[in-house]
Amino acid sequence: MRVRAEELGCSLRPHLKTCKTVEAGVIATGGTRRRVTVSTIAEAKFFADAGFDDILYAVPLTADKVDDVEKLHAGLAQFHVMIDHAEQAAALIARLSRPEVREQMLARPLSVFVGVDCGYHRDGCDPNDPSSVALVHMLAESGVTTLAGIYTHGGHSYDAANAAEIVRIAEQERDVTVGFATKLRSIGLNVPRAGVGSTPTCSLAPSHLDGIDEMHPGNFLYYDMTQVALGTCAGAATGYGGFPEHPELRISNLKQECGEVSTADGAPLEYARYPIGSLLAIAPHHSCAATHQHQHVYVVAEPTDRTIIDTWRICKGW
Amino acid sequence: MRVRAEELGCSLRPHLKTCKTVEAGVIATGGTRRRVTVSTIAEAKFFADAGFDDILYAVPLTADKVDDVEKLHAGLAQFHVMIDHAEQAAALIARLSRPEVREQMLARPLSVFVGVDCGYHRDGCDPNDPSSVALVHMLAESGVTTLAGIYTHGGHSYDAANAAEIVRIAEQERDVTVGFATKLRSIGLNVPRAGVGSTPTCSLAPSHLDGIDEMHPGNFLYYDMTQVALGTCAGAATGYGGFPEHPELRISNLKQECGEVSTADGAPLEYARYPIGSLLAIAPHHSCAATHQHQHVYVVAEPTDRTIIDTWRICKGW
Repeated sequence: MRVRAEELGCSLRPHLKTCKTVEAGVIATGGTRRRVTVSTIAEAKFFADAGFDDILYAVPLTADKVDDVEKLHAGLAQFHVMIDHAEQAAALIARLSRPEVREQMLARPLSVFVGVDCGYHRDGCDPNDPSSVALVHMLAESGVTTLAGIYTHGGHSYDAANAAEIVRIAEQERDVTVGFATKLRSIGLNVPRAGVGSTPTCSLAPSHLDGIDEMHPGNFLYYDMTQVALGTCAGAATGYGGFPEHPELRISNLKQECGEVSTADGAPLEYARYPIGSLLAIAPHHSCAATHQHQHVYVVAEPTDRTIIDTWRICKGW
Repeated sequence: MRVRAEELGCSLRPHLKTCKTVEAGVIATGGTRRRVTVSTIAEAKFFADAGFDDILYAVPLTADKVDDVEKLHAGLAQFHVMIDHAEQAAALIARLSRPEVREQMLARPLSVFVGVDCGYHRDGCDPNDPSSVALVHMLAESGVTTLAGIYTHGGHSYDAANAAEIVRIAEQERDVTVGFATKLRSIGLNVPRAGVGSTPTCSLAPSHLDGIDEMHPGNFLYYDMTQVALGTCAGAATGYGGFPEHPELRISNLKQECGEVSTADGAPLEYARYPIGSLLAIAPHHSCAATHQHQHVYVVAEPTDRTIIDTWRICKGW
């Protein structure tokens, strides 16, 4: 993915919510431990404690997290938050302007990405609404905040029917983001960075990303059966995860620690092939959620050699 | 639930996979820390370390867990495993019969419940198949194992269409289990206990449980929106959990840390009622799975007073 980002003329800011481990974060940043995305304050602290820097907390910021944000801002060379609504911006600016911190924030303002909705409609401001320009203005001009750039996530790519639709959403991510950056720059605002990304749209990327500075997929670190089903990586799609070494099987139901297994083609199960006590490797349906179920990642020597050669600690909590 | 079990003439053996905390386990056992069910070896160790005893590990035992089972058996007054297939039984008996432990196992055999399928078809032996009688025989007569009783879980109650169907499944749990116990006793086998249970069938219990010695629901410790939807406890059913203080809202989608909220009746959302930064309490869809997402349970003074008065540690791992 780093090579693809370079070829497309932008930087990779991997989203570490998928792996939640220092070791995978080191690999994803090419060893630099710089320029990453996280989705919880717990992850921001976890990676900051491990020497990561230039961390973007890419969830619309609420007031209850500002204390933690101030500490992360103070302790890192670059820490960025994301804002997509004027109320959040006003609350943040008010907090950073209180007498006891105002001087210090003016000397070193908090870096803020403005979230832009490119069609997902879960978060991000509407780039066609004049109030969104006013929001960027407010953050760029407050003195206690500074504009890091604009950020979008084409999460609707996960609902795409086919590969062509994913590419169309990738183009939409790019066009909406570049269009909004252009509009902001045309009125004199400094927009240092424009970022796009979801694993589907970065895997089935458009022919060019001109005007885009960084992309921030996360799921690609593991890929999973959701991505297989979307056609963004190779494999045979099934529900509820799959068995890479046994494509003839599928998981047909899951209940906490127990799963029900049937054949992919509906034929009777040949029990003799899977005697009681067999251990079958499972490729998760959604790797972010699967990671979150565990305390550690066990790293094996080879897919077929399950000797554990390393154990990575998974960040827990929110 | 303890009172209901008593009224029905049997003991409660609560399934602690739902709460995964010592404190809730103490409450569920009426302070005795005796007679509980667990679904992972990690839970068995967690509760054993906290002074619980008479622990049933109620998942069909596989050979890779026998080392742990031997330690739990040695360290507890009563530890029971569950077996539902002759291959498992043969493997277990072979392991417990190896020269270095055989004498000791003969002196104090491992206690085994035989899992019986009452219609769920996920696990449990078929009570109508002669091989199931042979299985019980093998475990009762091996010398290194001893029969604790028979165990069933009417998990198909979770797929029931209405309350009447749940009661029918509860009657099926009872009748199949009592029928199989009667058959075993008729050929001279000692069946000390017959156990049934799922939270739906124990909540909408049949008029009598004659012949049943214990019931082992777990989800009732918290109840959740699945149970509300099934009609086993009060509340308004929604998908993906609900908002007890805001029945007009529902969660319409979940993506890791983010949820999408809409109105229950499809009317436009009145944003003024839920200003940005509002904290809304969520009742999980499935409390077992929700518990497993967290490291701790925060206990509040009252549902409406969110002052945290205690923090309970959640058992992690498998």
